[in-house]
Amino acid sequence: MTENPDRPAPRTVRVGLLGCGTVGGALTELVTGRCDDIAARTGVRLTVSRIAVRDARRPRQVQLADAVLTEDPASVVTADDVDVVVEVIGGIEPARTLITTALRSGKPVVSANKELLAHHGAELFELADAHGVDLLFEAAVAGGIPFVRPLRESLAGEDVTRVIGIINGTTNYILTKMTEEGWSYTEALAEAQALGYAEADPTADVGGFDAGAKAAIIAGIAFGVALSAEDVHHEGITEVSADDIATARRLGFQIKLLAVAERFDDNSVAVRVHPTMVPEEHPLASVRDSFNAVFVEGRAVGELMFYGRGAGGGPTASAVLGDVIDASVNLVQGSHASLGVFTPASLRPQSELPSAFYLAVEVADQPGVLATVAGVFGTNGVSIRSMEQVGADGDATARLVFITHAAREADVSATLIKLRSLDVVGSIDSVIRVLGDA
Amino acid sequence: MTENPDRPAPRTVRVGLLGCGTVGGALTELVTGRCDDIAARTGVRLTVSRIAVRDARRPRQVQLADAVLTEDPASVVTADDVDVVVEVIGGIEPARTLITTALRSGKPVVSANKELLAHHGAELFELADAHGVDLLFEAAVAGGIPFVRPLRESLAGEDVTRVIGIINGTTNYILTKMTEEGWSYTEALAEAQALGYAEADPTADVGGFDAGAKAAIIAGIAFGVALSAEDVHHEGITEVSADDIATARRLGFQIKLLAVAERFDDNSVAVRVHPTMVPEEHPLASVRDSFNAVFVEGRAVGELMFYGRGAGGGPTASAVLGDVIDASVNLVQGSHASLGVFTPASLRPQSELPSAFYLAVEVADQPGVLATVAGVFGTNGVSIRSMEQVGADGDATARLVFITHAAREADVSATLIKLRSLDVVGSIDSVIRVLGDA
Repeated sequence: MTENPDRPAPRTVRVGLLGCGTVGGALTELVTGRCDDIAARTGVRLTVSRIAVRDARRPRQVQLADAVLTEDPASVVTADDVDVVVEVIGGIEPARTLITTALRSGKPVVSANKELLAHHGAELFELADAHGVDLLFEAAVAGGIPFVRPLRESLAGEDVTRVIGIINGTTNYILTKMTEEGWSYTEALAEAQALGYAEADPTADVGGFDAGAKAAIIAGIAFGVALSAEDVHHEGITEVSADDIATARRLGFQIKLLAVAERFDDNSVAVRVHPTMVPEEHPLASVRDSFNAVFVEGRAVGELMFYGRGAGGGPTASAVLGDVIDASVNLVQGSHASLGVFTPASLRPQSELPSAFYLAVEVADQPGVLATVAGVFGTNGVSIRSMEQVGADGDATARLVFITHAAREADVSATLIKLRSLDVVGSIDSVIRVLGDA
Repeated sequence: MTENPDRPAPRTVRVGLLGCGTVGGALTELVTGRCDDIAARTGVRLTVSRIAVRDARRPRQVQLADAVLTEDPASVVTADDVDVVVEVIGGIEPARTLITTALRSGKPVVSANKELLAHHGAELFELADAHGVDLLFEAAVAGGIPFVRPLRESLAGEDVTRVIGIINGTTNYILTKMTEEGWSYTEALAEAQALGYAEADPTADVGGFDAGAKAAIIAGIAFGVALSAEDVHHEGITEVSADDIATARRLGFQIKLLAVAERFDDNSVAVRVHPTMVPEEHPLASVRDSFNAVFVEGRAVGELMFYGRGAGGGPTASAVLGDVIDASVNLVQGSHASLGVFTPASLRPQSELPSAFYLAVEVADQPGVLATVAGVFGTNGVSIRSMEQVGADGDATARLVFITHAAREADVSATLIKLRSLDVVGSIDSVIRVLGDA
């Protein structure tokens, strides 16, 4: 694209970068490669003026142009030649202090830091608003997928009732390989580690903590409430067996690690992360490998889904760059995007949430057992949608597989306690939630 | 959400509505139902002050609150008590004149009019820019799916190379029913008409014209070029047979009507709409029924997909409302979103475009025919990816099914002309493009 001669010369906006790892490096390259096109489109010419790194003498692949390298991040957030601060170092400190200083100095901030925003988002958003500057964080929620902006702006008038996300690429890769290649959890995790998708200590991913932090941010924006990662119930994928996956497929489901953020009619909200059986025909079922997707249900708009790469240098840098352009245009125009008011969240307790369940129960293979077991569901107010008996021919035990209608989690727990107490019940092998209507 | 007592009272923005059919009615209801929440979130209180309708005496289901009904749309676009104009009447005139007047009066405009924007978009965007006001059109491209805003803003720095859309719900419904229920084209069309998805004269949908208009708008924003619906090559779905669909499924494909907008390395662009075989594992293959989706390929971000309802009162009104809020916030802040510069498009001729093809050829069932036919592909520079012979046992003819690698369309045309001239070739029954890498 050529610049229009009638347009005024682009205003230069100088970016100060905190961190220059995979994402910071990719961002620096993107700014260098795309700044002419961005200037032609937006009237803003971006340049990276300062970069804070841990070791300024380490050789780098990335061409850092004329940027000043420093090992003192505090000098970047207050520098006169920095107009917009980008934070891609991650973790709570020093990121929190640095961002706070930048906002107080009237500098807009773009952050990819899900951990910080999930724990201290509401406080930082208020600070940004109070100082009339932007705090943007597209890359913190679903990597390269433009989701925060559509949710905040395009859907600003929409009555969003539920957001369901596959927002951890590592676990989606593991579950996909278990499903499509028949690998065990251990094999799939090892391959994810070999590919660099999973850390040596994979707990943050496989335990659902990473998805939980992102879900807290999503719920905050979607419902305009202040909540933190501690408010999210999470279960990981370590208990999902090859057998569960095989049974799920036979019944027409895929097992996915879903983050579910809901708002109920009384305006209470709940956010939870857990392995979930997703019907094959649901759009989330076809989200494979390390891809992410966020599914939104709204009263007027119906169903929406946003799909793409949730991690990686290029996709994450792309999301950061979109925010940097937005903050820069706002800076030049003297405006900023308000996040609105975050009211304290009224959290609905996990025990009161509605869930459909898949349950696999080992029972004695004798007459009357099914009636006994089914009776336990009924007396606890849990309605059975489907039941089948699998395997067990000629054996002394049979395996019963149930799918329930949506029931209160407390009622399902009571059912499980009662079932475990029965002599005819050997063990309860699987308890997995099933995605249903809101 | 309650309003923060520290916040100033919301500024009221008065909406003038042109048209009050399905979308206009749904929008009016949404504004009434959601204005408190919107005020709490954005500081802007929306109200519908004037509505232009064809017949002001017709009884209406929708509660129009205090809005003034008029049969004179020109009075709405210049009224002092209208701050933002919403155009949902469709068609070129009088919409074009009304929008032009509104923009010249300094009023931001939100339009859902794909036909107008596909033919006169560049001229109207320039006018809006010249008068420093917004012209927003989220609903004109993919109904309720937030796509224009993410593409314009979140991806403002991204090097987008290709956009592929399922952007006509009627044809996607018809193809889904042919695929999943085995219906004929005629049966599926009749059901689409019964459900109100298809018009009595379905040409605009099944001929690819509707998708072509939307694709022209998408390509303009994605690549920053000025082009119109006339620049789009389109083929409809009327030639797609039940047999094509069955063969596609057997080979691992779904047939979809795709709009494909591409930019090549020399910055030339091409936009085309045609039935396409989509690999089962591609995210677009699982977009079913009347749903729409837009798939984006960018150098940094990789692959993205945006999925949702492309039509209907609620979804379309939701997209219009998002734009109305955006325009209102900008109005209050004294800013506006620039669309940037649209340079004249350098269009790559259809004959020069790369496409992979699926071809079904009836041939005489005799030795040496395959070599002869394959030789024609080779001498015309078309490389064969796979071939199989189907049916024809004991018959005098055989059916050869080819899938080619990507080849120039001109070379494929030359291949077809030569094949038709051969004595051993009876007929060429199907010529369908296959989705491949860019």
